[in-house]
Amino acid sequence: MSHGKQFTLYTHGSGPNGWKTAIVLEELGLTYESVYLDFGKREHKAPDYLKVNPNGRIPAIVDHHNNDFVVWETLAILEYLVDKYDKDHKLSSTGQDKYIELQWLAFQVSGQGRQCSPYFGQSAWFQKFHSEKIPSAIERYNNEIKRVFSVLDSVLSKQKYLVGEKVTIADLSYITWNVAVLAWVLPDADIEKNYPAFARWHKELTEREAVKKVYAIRDSLSK
Amino acid sequence: MSHGKQFTLYTHGSGPNGWKTAIVLEELGLTYESVYLDFGKREHKAPDYLKVNPNGRIPAIVDHHNNDFVVWETLAILEYLVDKYDKDHKLSSTGQDKYIELQWLAFQVSGQGRQCSPYFGQSAWFQKFHSEKIPSAIERYNNEIKRVFSVLDSVLSKQKYLVGEKVTIADLSYITWNVAVLAWVLPDADIEKNYPAFARWHKELTEREAVKKVYAIRDSLSK
Repeated sequence: MSHGKQFTLYTHGSGPNGWKTAIVLEELGLTYESVYLDFGKREHKAPDYLKVNPNGRIPAIVDHHNNDFVVWETLAILEYLVDKYDKDHKLSSTGQDKYIELQWLAFQVSGQGRQCSPYFGQSAWFQKFHSEKIPSAIERYNNEIKRVFSVLDSVLSKQKYLVGEKVTIADLSYITWNVAVLAWVLPDADIEKNYPAFARWHKELTEREAVKKVYAIRDSLSK
Repeated sequence: MSHGKQFTLYTHGSGPNGWKTAIVLEELGLTYESVYLDFGKREHKAPDYLKVNPNGRIPAIVDHHNNDFVVWETLAILEYLVDKYDKDHKLSSTGQDKYIELQWLAFQVSGQGRQCSPYFGQSAWFQKFHSEKIPSAIERYNNEIKRVFSVLDSVLSKQKYLVGEKVTIADLSYITWNVAVLAWVLPDADIEKNYPAFARWHKELTEREAVKKVYAIRDSLSK
């Protein structure tokens, strides 16, 4: 690739999973060029992009230092990045903890968020985009978001991070969806009062340098 | 545990993810005792079970040959089982293919199914349990199920299985949700005509001995 960076990151300005991937790339000090797909022009469904990701979603990465190896699905991307480029396990687990890390990464996918898929994304979709505005469905999704907050809070009241005493990709995988949902879906959740361990954890994660850098990039896009 | 089997599998008679886990245990020849939680009695939310899985969902496994190590979230369970007990890689990938395997496992979670979560489960919930029956939401979910069929079909028309030329846990992870959705949600999908490569793959997977055995166990429960 002519951009000279190690990775190409196919992403989108408002997709939490794209920013999540950027956070982990920044945390690991890896260089990447972001290609922002224009969903309005259906670039994510264009034949060239479907060759990269047949699912036609973002994010996807191409590793130019590894024969242009392609991975999509954020969970698989994060696992690839740490297995290959976090040899000191700065952000990843070893031994049996690896499966606890995977467990929380999978809970993020199934329980927390994916735009237009599980609870967080569904709730945002129902509230913002659905033509009928369905109170019972919105209530159901919002209750499920609160249940996910409770599950995380119950665990984080007994240990500092999801896998134990160290920040891993499991923790990092929750940041962008939590930021999105607290801004758009449940601005009145009052997490400091209702989920104090969750709130402490979320605040600490958002104050990491890599996270601040990625949000500064995001904010600069909308200027 | 007094049952003498290697694993305890906490599961439920009608949860596709529980049967999915049973299929992989059978494929690997591992012994397990199934504990069917009674959702009507809220056994999945009982304090004793929340100590096993703070998310209060099934499945969860306890490995009695490994200091009662506990894993929940099906994706993490399957990865644990093959990493530890599929040393010959009968059902799992090595090297870079590992991340392609993870990618398809994650696509199953985010794109295909989880009861009360992504598209397949949501559609079943909307059709069967939701008090209001919302046509536009049902249509949206059903269209998304068909899109997932198309994505799988497009890949499986070019290669035999999701990771390549060998059945892996990635393929196995789709069986139970496909069976459920084809029976309950989209019985008129006509997959042989509309998604022929997907249909060929799904039929072959359902004819595996381990899969037939697990469905026989399931059917015996309802007698």
